[in-house]
Amino acid sequence: MTSLQPFLAAIQSEIDKTVYGESPKELYEPIDYIMELGGKRMRPALTLIAVNLFSDNWQNALKPAVAVEVFHNFTLMHDDIMDAAPLRRGQATVHEKWGDDVAILSGDVMLVAAYELLTTVDDKYFKRVVKRFNRTAAEVCEGQQFDMNFATRDDVTEEEYLNMIRLKTSVLLGFALELGGIISDADDKTIGLLYETGVNMGLGFQLKDDLLDVYGDPEKFGKQVGGDIIENKKTWLLLKALEKSKSSSPELYKELQSWISTTGKDAEKVAAVTEIYNKLGIKTAAENVVNMYFEKGLRALKSIEVGDERKLPLKEFAAYLMARES
Amino acid sequence: MTSLQPFLAAIQSEIDKTVYGESPKELYEPIDYIMELGGKRMRPALTLIAVNLFSDNWQNALKPAVAVEVFHNFTLMHDDIMDAAPLRRGQATVHEKWGDDVAILSGDVMLVAAYELLTTVDDKYFKRVVKRFNRTAAEVCEGQQFDMNFATRDDVTEEEYLNMIRLKTSVLLGFALELGGIISDADDKTIGLLYETGVNMGLGFQLKDDLLDVYGDPEKFGKQVGGDIIENKKTWLLLKALEKSKSSSPELYKELQSWISTTGKDAEKVAAVTEIYNKLGIKTAAENVVNMYFEKGLRALKSIEVGDERKLPLKEFAAYLMARES
Repeated sequence: MTSLQPFLAAIQSEIDKTVYGESPKELYEPIDYIMELGGKRMRPALTLIAVNLFSDNWQNALKPAVAVEVFHNFTLMHDDIMDAAPLRRGQATVHEKWGDDVAILSGDVMLVAAYELLTTVDDKYFKRVVKRFNRTAAEVCEGQQFDMNFATRDDVTEEEYLNMIRLKTSVLLGFALELGGIISDADDKTIGLLYETGVNMGLGFQLKDDLLDVYGDPEKFGKQVGGDIIENKKTWLLLKALEKSKSSSPELYKELQSWISTTGKDAEKVAAVTEIYNKLGIKTAAENVVNMYFEKGLRALKSIEVGDERKLPLKEFAAYLMARES
Repeated sequence: MTSLQPFLAAIQSEIDKTVYGESPKELYEPIDYIMELGGKRMRPALTLIAVNLFSDNWQNALKPAVAVEVFHNFTLMHDDIMDAAPLRRGQATVHEKWGDDVAILSGDVMLVAAYELLTTVDDKYFKRVVKRFNRTAAEVCEGQQFDMNFATRDDVTEEEYLNMIRLKTSVLLGFALELGGIISDADDKTIGLLYETGVNMGLGFQLKDDLLDVYGDPEKFGKQVGGDIIENKKTWLLLKALEKSKSSSPELYKELQSWISTTGKDAEKVAAVTEIYNKLGIKTAAENVVNMYFEKGLRALKSIEVGDERKLPLKEFAAYLMARES
C-alpha cells in the first residue's frame, strides 16, 4: 500500500490533533480513547483518495475525511453497547471501561463532532454534504437494527442479508468516496460513480470479512476464526449453505441445522460446519461473490473520466482490501 | 396563552405529518411514539415566536422549529435510559417499552433527523445554523454528564449547579430563539439578544421547576411533589439550604444532613426538609432568583429593536412560564 502511506499518515496526524472538547472529561476522554484504538482508517482514506482523483490538494479535505472516521467510531461505540462487546481491537470497549451511560452520551457527542468537522467544507457544498451524510447515517442505523432483528429470525434471505450489509457497512464507504467528489466540484455523474465504487467495494469488503471469519489464517486474522459459526451469525456463508443444502442435500441441511442448535462444543462445531461449507462449495462461491463486487466497484471507477495514473491509489486500495488476510 | 395558540397548533400539525422513516419499524416507531407523548412544545414555539418578531411568515420556519423539538426529544429518549426512568408524561419510556438497544439506536436516528429538518433553512444561513446547533447540542450533552457527575458528589456549588442547568436546559431555549433570528436575517446584535433572552428564560424555567418540585400544588403539578427531596437531588434549593444553614444555623445544617442520609421515610423526609427550607427562607430566595432570571431575559427582549406589539407573544410566553404551576 505504498501509494496510500501519505494519506494514512496525514489522517493519523489530523486525528491526533483533533480536540473534541475539554469538560466534563467523562464525556470527551472516551472519544480520544476510541479514536486512538486504531483501525484501517479506510473511510477517511477513501475521501482523500477521491479528492486526489481531481487535485493534489487533498490535504484541504482532512477535516471532512476525519468526520467520516469520527462517525464510524461513534457507531462502534454505540454498537458495542448493544452487542455487549467487552473488547474492541484487543482493548476494553468504552462501555466496559466507563459504563453504558458514558458510552451513550459520549457517542452522542461524537455524532455532533462529526457534523462539526463537516462544517469545514466550502459553503457551496455544505448543504449537499449534510443531506447526503444524514441519509447515510440513517441508513447505517437502519442496517444495525436489521442486523439485530436477524439474530432472532430464522428466515433471513440472502437478499435481506445483502441489503443489511449494504446499509450497515457499504453506504458509508460509498459516502466517503462521494464526499471527496462533491467537495472537488465533480459533476453529478462522476459523484454517482464514486458512490457506486464505494458501495460495491464495501459489499466485497464485508463479504470478505465473513469469509475470513471462517477461512482466515488464525496467525494473521486477529480475531478468533470461527466466531461467526459459534454464534450462529447469519452471514452470507451460512445463509448460502442453508439454501444450497436445502435444495441439493437434505442430509447436509439436517446436519447443519443440528449444529446450529448445538452449544458448548465450540471447536467441534467450527470444524463440522466448516466441513459442511467445504462439501457445499461455499468457500469458492463466497470468493466469487467477493470478487464480483470488487470488480463491479472497479468497473464504476473505470468509467470515471480522469487519467489512469490518478486512479492508482484507489485501485491499490481495492486490491489491498480484496487480498487482505486480516 | 391565547396569542400562542396559532403557533402551538401549527407545531402539532407539523409534528403529526413529519415522517422520520419507514423500515425497520423498530427504529422509527419509537420516534413517533415519543414525539406524540406531548409536552409544552416550548422550544419550537420559541423559534416561531422569534421569527414572528420580524415577519408574519413564521409558517416557513415550522420545519427548523420542529428540528429543535426532535432534538429535545432525542435527549429525553437517551436521558431516560441513563436515569432508568420507567415513565415519561405518564406513559412507558421508550427503553422500558422496547428495550435499551432500540432506545439507543432510535435516539441516534432522531439526532440525524433533527439535522435533516434543519436542512430546510435557506442555504445562506445553513452553515451558521448548523454550527450553532452543534455547539448547543454538545453543551446539552455536557450538562447531562455534569448532572450525572453531581449525583455522586457532595461538594457541588451553586455556581456549578447554575452552569449545569444552563448547559442541560437553557442553551437550547437560547438556541431556539436565536435560530428564529438567524433565519429572519436579523443582525448579530439582535441575534445575541434573542439568545440571551432564551438562556435567561431557561434558567428561570429550570429553577421554577426545582421550586415546583417542593412547593407545587399536588393537584396541579403532575409529578410527585417532593421527588427531588426523596432522591437527594442537588437542586438549587438544597444547595442554597446547605449553604445558608452551614453559615447561619449549625443545628439546621446537621438536621438537613441527617435527612439526606435517611432512606425509607419518604413522606416524613419531604415534610421535614420542606420545613427546614421554610425556616431558612429558601422558598422566597428561590422565587427571587426565578424572577431575577426571567426579568433579565425580558430586559434583553426589551433591547431588541422591533415594535412592542411584535413582542407580545414572547412576553406572554415568559409570563406563562413564570406563573406556571405544572
